[in-house]
Amino acid sequence: MDAKRLENTLMAINQFGYSDKGMTRLAYSEIERQAVEHFAGLCRQAGMTVCIDASGNLIARREGRHPDWPAVAVGSHLDTVIQGGGYDGALGVVAALEVIYSMNDGQIETDHPVEIIAFACEESSRFGVSTVGSKAMAGILDKEKLSGLTDRDGRSMAEAFSDCGLDFESVEQSARGRGELKAFFELHIEQGPVLENEGLQIGLATGIAAPSRYEVHIQGHASHSGTTPMNGRHDAFLGAAELSLELEKAAKLEVAYGTVATVGVCEVKPGAMNVVPDAAELKLEIRGTSVESKNRVVDRLFAAIEEAKSTRGLQITFRQLSNEMPVHLDSEVIESLSRLCAQEGFSYRRMPSGAGHDAMNMALLCPTGLIFVPSKDGVSHHRDEFTSVEQLAAGAILLEQAILQWAGASSSQQEVYRTERVL
Amino acid sequence: MDAKRLENTLMAINQFGYSDKGMTRLAYSEIERQAVEHFAGLCRQAGMTVCIDASGNLIARREGRHPDWPAVAVGSHLDTVIQGGGYDGALGVVAALEVIYSMNDGQIETDHPVEIIAFACEESSRFGVSTVGSKAMAGILDKEKLSGLTDRDGRSMAEAFSDCGLDFESVEQSARGRGELKAFFELHIEQGPVLENEGLQIGLATGIAAPSRYEVHIQGHASHSGTTPMNGRHDAFLGAAELSLELEKAAKLEVAYGTVATVGVCEVKPGAMNVVPDAAELKLEIRGTSVESKNRVVDRLFAAIEEAKSTRGLQITFRQLSNEMPVHLDSEVIESLSRLCAQEGFSYRRMPSGAGHDAMNMALLCPTGLIFVPSKDGVSHHRDEFTSVEQLAAGAILLEQAILQWAGASSSQQEVYRTERVL
Repeated sequence: MDAKRLENTLMAINQFGYSDKGMTRLAYSEIERQAVEHFAGLCRQAGMTVCIDASGNLIARREGRHPDWPAVAVGSHLDTVIQGGGYDGALGVVAALEVIYSMNDGQIETDHPVEIIAFACEESSRFGVSTVGSKAMAGILDKEKLSGLTDRDGRSMAEAFSDCGLDFESVEQSARGRGELKAFFELHIEQGPVLENEGLQIGLATGIAAPSRYEVHIQGHASHSGTTPMNGRHDAFLGAAELSLELEKAAKLEVAYGTVATVGVCEVKPGAMNVVPDAAELKLEIRGTSVESKNRVVDRLFAAIEEAKSTRGLQITFRQLSNEMPVHLDSEVIESLSRLCAQEGFSYRRMPSGAGHDAMNMALLCPTGLIFVPSKDGVSHHRDEFTSVEQLAAGAILLEQAILQWAGASSSQQEVYRTERVL
Repeated sequence: MDAKRLENTLMAINQFGYSDKGMTRLAYSEIERQAVEHFAGLCRQAGMTVCIDASGNLIARREGRHPDWPAVAVGSHLDTVIQGGGYDGALGVVAALEVIYSMNDGQIETDHPVEIIAFACEESSRFGVSTVGSKAMAGILDKEKLSGLTDRDGRSMAEAFSDCGLDFESVEQSARGRGELKAFFELHIEQGPVLENEGLQIGLATGIAAPSRYEVHIQGHASHSGTTPMNGRHDAFLGAAELSLELEKAAKLEVAYGTVATVGVCEVKPGAMNVVPDAAELKLEIRGTSVESKNRVVDRLFAAIEEAKSTRGLQITFRQLSNEMPVHLDSEVIESLSRLCAQEGFSYRRMPSGAGHDAMNMALLCPTGLIFVPSKDGVSHHRDEFTSVEQLAAGAILLEQAILQWAGASSSQQEVYRTERVL
């Protein structure tokens, strides 16, 4: 493991789409494909065979002693949000290559083949839909839904595929069988402040929280802000404000379960200083790995809606936009990663992942591990994203140990390798 | 007083700018000027001399026995908001003409001249500034400020004046001296629910509440909605929600003073479901006729701002957009109108006006009375504005009695007139 080399590889990837406002490599864009092509070249130079599957996922393979045994896969994604940071996604892909470099350095052979996967379209920034490549690989892509989506230039998913030399019609060919992979590991920045706040090196995801999203429409009665007495108002915005604070309270009661709730969108109409608002629309989400805990928050929200309807004389309707099920990650993988942390002397904790990742789809195919390293100030999706090289190295070392273990490297070789590694 | 004739005149005016979504006669627009011209024609037919002053106010004059005595003026405005109702403004102008018709019918002469004034640009819908014509007449127009304003088509106030054959450069010539008018009366719909709720025919405005307006900027910290624990958030929107509810509470404590407060605008950024909002901007106003009561509300708002800054770790700045002083209307006029209500058997109450009116500027020139009739459901600035013909008639009768009294009609003539009126 050469932390300096890892950092250099990462910096080279981040030249693609770089600006002083952040990295922009939108899914299926020319610049993102250039980054994938650049990475493919590095993999080939490292002796791997590379293919791009039907949904644009890069799969680079290092053969094992038993080519017909299921592969141990490792990866993340190279696409970014608009003006994103240099670590989200790219770290996991580059660290996977560093593991290969390191195995090559140590001339380590494994029983199982090892694959690096750089998933396509993990971010929802272009088409409003996330983890497209890993959904396709896990065989859960809703092709019909996707075919109706367009980006902000009106370009469809099929056109974007075509721009990259891909055929959207055959996207389902990305699906892999359950026997093809032995395990999947993803290294990712935390995108939250927990590890930094607790001074820990590693987070081991126990599960991935799924958002339940709601749109709440609050209808009041527009009236003149000067002539309507306070007790004669049906102010839609104040109803929205009350619901939002009640939702916060409800989520805070679930802090032990890590459930969170956010009102991210609030639109108020007519939006004039001299009119009591007659309409407000909230878009909110509730995330957690415990379905019961999420349900309690939803129940409290519904109770608050009933309360606001009666005390403020408002009409309130809501619509569930999505209700994803949380993913629980394989306990054997978590146990194994915990032992490796202890062996390496890394401080770590188990924690839920509040954000979605390709790992959540891969968990449907094979035992899956998701490893976090700290994010400075919890920042992500922003040029200020930062994880120190020492923190990256710890994550990469853990990733490497996991690959070696799961892919079946002989222990003598591992020992040689460990004494030689450069930190 | 012929209520049917009043209603017909009103309907004829409302043909200008009519659509099934409401009446649209924006200030200084072609259709508004057509309505003014139509009304000028009616005034001329009624024997009045008509002029349009430098700011576009129509002044129609019925001579008195003493042409050099100060005139008693009566009026309101003919411009509307976008898709407004049929009563706001137009009622006061049309009722003034009905008073003249009625005096003509009764061959009534007055000592003082009587003037109908249809003020220009009472509504702020086109240029964001209200009561332009009456401000100009009262000599308090901020010409420099106005010259910088444009409508949504980018047309300046000066260009709009030019479209109407007016010269914006000479707008200050509209100003009248303090000795020119003996009194001013305006009949207007309440635009609120108080008279309807209390089952009263007439409201006599004791003063006009002035808005103090503030822009509050709340800066938090954007973070991932899934990965940021509830206790690690600096959610700008929740801070905004809290302030808005505190402002409501503060205004409710002042219910005895009629002070009201409204958050009409709330903008939340970045406005994505998966990001904890980092910025919120509120625009709010506090209205009341008691400066002390308004100040108490402002003080409580400021205290809530300090509280939110410390408990939520937000940066909050505010800016006063305007701070108008309430206008107190002449007590002698209110007394006189009260006596006339008693004499006519009209149920009435004294009340503050929560909305601004041309009367508030005219009060700087001469003793001024502002008479309200009920608004169905308190609705205004909407096609659903409604006041029944009986309610209109009561207002018009009171207006007529006030004009006769203040303009000095001989009582025998008044008696003849009263027995002949048609209801």
